Amino acid sequence: MTKKILVTGTSVRPELLQPLVEAGYEIINPTNLLSEEELKTALLSCSAYLLGGDEYASLGALSSAANLKVVAFLGMGYESFVDAAAAKTLGIAVTNTPGTLSNSVAEFTVGLVLSSTRKLFLYASEYALGRTGTEEKQRDLSALHVGIIGLGGIGTRIAEILRNGFGSHVSYYSRTRKPHLEADLGVSYLDLGSLVATVDVLIVMTPGNEHTKGLIGQSQVSALRPGTIVVNTARPEIVDQAALLEGLSSGQISYAAFDGFYDSNPELTEKLKAYVPTKLMITGHIGSLTSEARDGMARKATDSILAVLKPGTDLNIVNGV
Amino acid sequence: MTKKILVTGTSVRPELLQPLVEAGYEIINPTNLLSEEELKTALLSCSAYLLGGDEYASLGALSSAANLKVVAFLGMGYESFVDAAAAKTLGIAVTNTPGTLSNSVAEFTVGLVLSSTRKLFLYASEYALGRTGTEEKQRDLSALHVGIIGLGGIGTRIAEILRNGFGSHVSYYSRTRKPHLEADLGVSYLDLGSLVATVDVLIVMTPGNEHTKGLIGQSQVSALRPGTIVVNTARPEIVDQAALLEGLSSGQISYAAFDGFYDSNPELTEKLKAYVPTKLMITGHIGSLTSEARDGMARKATDSILAVLKPGTDLNIVNGV
Repeated sequence: MTKKILVTGTSVRPELLQPLVEAGYEIINPTNLLSEEELKTALLSCSAYLLGGDEYASLGALSSAANLKVVAFLGMGYESFVDAAAAKTLGIAVTNTPGTLSNSVAEFTVGLVLSSTRKLFLYASEYALGRTGTEEKQRDLSALHVGIIGLGGIGTRIAEILRNGFGSHVSYYSRTRKPHLEADLGVSYLDLGSLVATVDVLIVMTPGNEHTKGLIGQSQVSALRPGTIVVNTARPEIVDQAALLEGLSSGQISYAAFDGFYDSNPELTEKLKAYVPTKLMITGHIGSLTSEARDGMARKATDSILAVLKPGTDLNIVNGV
Repeated sequence: MTKKILVTGTSVRPELLQPLVEAGYEIINPTNLLSEEELKTALLSCSAYLLGGDEYASLGALSSAANLKVVAFLGMGYESFVDAAAAKTLGIAVTNTPGTLSNSVAEFTVGLVLSSTRKLFLYASEYALGRTGTEEKQRDLSALHVGIIGLGGIGTRIAEILRNGFGSHVSYYSRTRKPHLEADLGVSYLDLGSLVATVDVLIVMTPGNEHTKGLIGQSQVSALRPGTIVVNTARPEIVDQAALLEGLSSGQISYAAFDGFYDSNPELTEKLKAYVPTKLMITGHIGSLTSEARDGMARKATDSILAVLKPGTDLNIVNGV
């Protein structure tokens, strides 16, 4: 019997699955969104599962997959797509693809920073409407103090671009200090209160979870210097929605750019959207949507599958199997 | 009698004129747009003239200014604001302010590059209209080959940001090769034909004049690789207007960003504007509109005035006086 690997979703280019084919596996690639029952059936005969679709790999779907060794999630936030704890009890490894999208999201973030420091979206929108001549002097990024919340892979790459390319003054806050990065990048650590009260541009780039939800709340926004730029390419909820509105209204925040926006409280969301494009620009969570990031994710996922299926283990297992 | 200096326009912050006051000069700063006659009268009693307004310093306006030693133009393109040849015959130095806006325009240009590589203006516009989910994969700037036409002060700063910050592959074309910059920046020289046929992103940053008008014409646009991004923060006319339309229509150009747009041929201009925001973004010639650039210009202009008025000469004299 041929060994099989299930690949879901449509985002992996076929040539990137070639290493799996060359290792002797048959690829099964349904393109529709699988129900729990369909997923369960498909997994019965599979040794590995590259999760690139929008389905949820539940305990029920995984429990009959006697040969399944690994669920390789295409991306970082596997929690919403696979029951990793259930997989662990079944002895199935769950992997994700760290690092592959850092550069793409970092470049996107710097794009939003420049769109904010120079109001590119606003002035391009105004030009399109025939309104010019009212543009105001802005600031050079090289002369600004930028604060980054979160100095993981993406935050580090943002700091590199800002320091090495633009020569900005960069500080960061994270739960744990990273002295080696401070020296390498020429960035300084500030506690959260000092960071928000000091910087000209605040970049939010920390994982979204119960600890970081509302990390930038009313008191942090009140502490911002008047005219601070806020760029959030992480989960929107890390910046409290009401606090953002208050900051835009009071002028503590002169411009904000978000990649992805709030799902809850549509009334607040509508009030915020009234600031588009004068003080706010929003894109639809597309910071990692590049060929380089997506191909990198696919390569890392197939590497993980082969690493788990071959004797040994894989570095990117996230559930301790 | 107090020595006087005429300062026109409203863009110089008063504290930046302090060095002139401290040197013993009285500042005359009319805020209205001066007629030739008004300018002539104002200059009668002045030793220096900081030209920051929109008036034209003609032979007529200058010829009676017996004590005038220097016209310090605030910016680079003095030709449209002062008759430098007439000033020379009168023994009046004309200065400008090179270098002061390089960083501002370079940052703005990189902002337009990222707005194009990631289609930030398009997708922010779409989001504002409630249209999301149709975004396509773009490219990482770090993986792209960028060509710069013109490696003066601004082009050099653009190359620095792209090389040191993003790690892009950068080539350039200019009339004269600059081997020391090639080594310093890690950029390669290509002749114009090779450059346009090779790069993923083409940046136009060369002075606008009769030699560069239409430098990117029909044949250059036809030679572009399909999907090339074109960013023009120099004079729009360096890219031939009809060729730009042809390139956007054929797909040789996937996205174009211009800071300042064509004055002539309104019919072609309207056809081009139909590509906003899907394939084109335009801003109103604001690449140098930052506090840092404008203050730098004012400081350089006052330095030049003091250098000319004190015994000796000034490095930024442009008309050989």
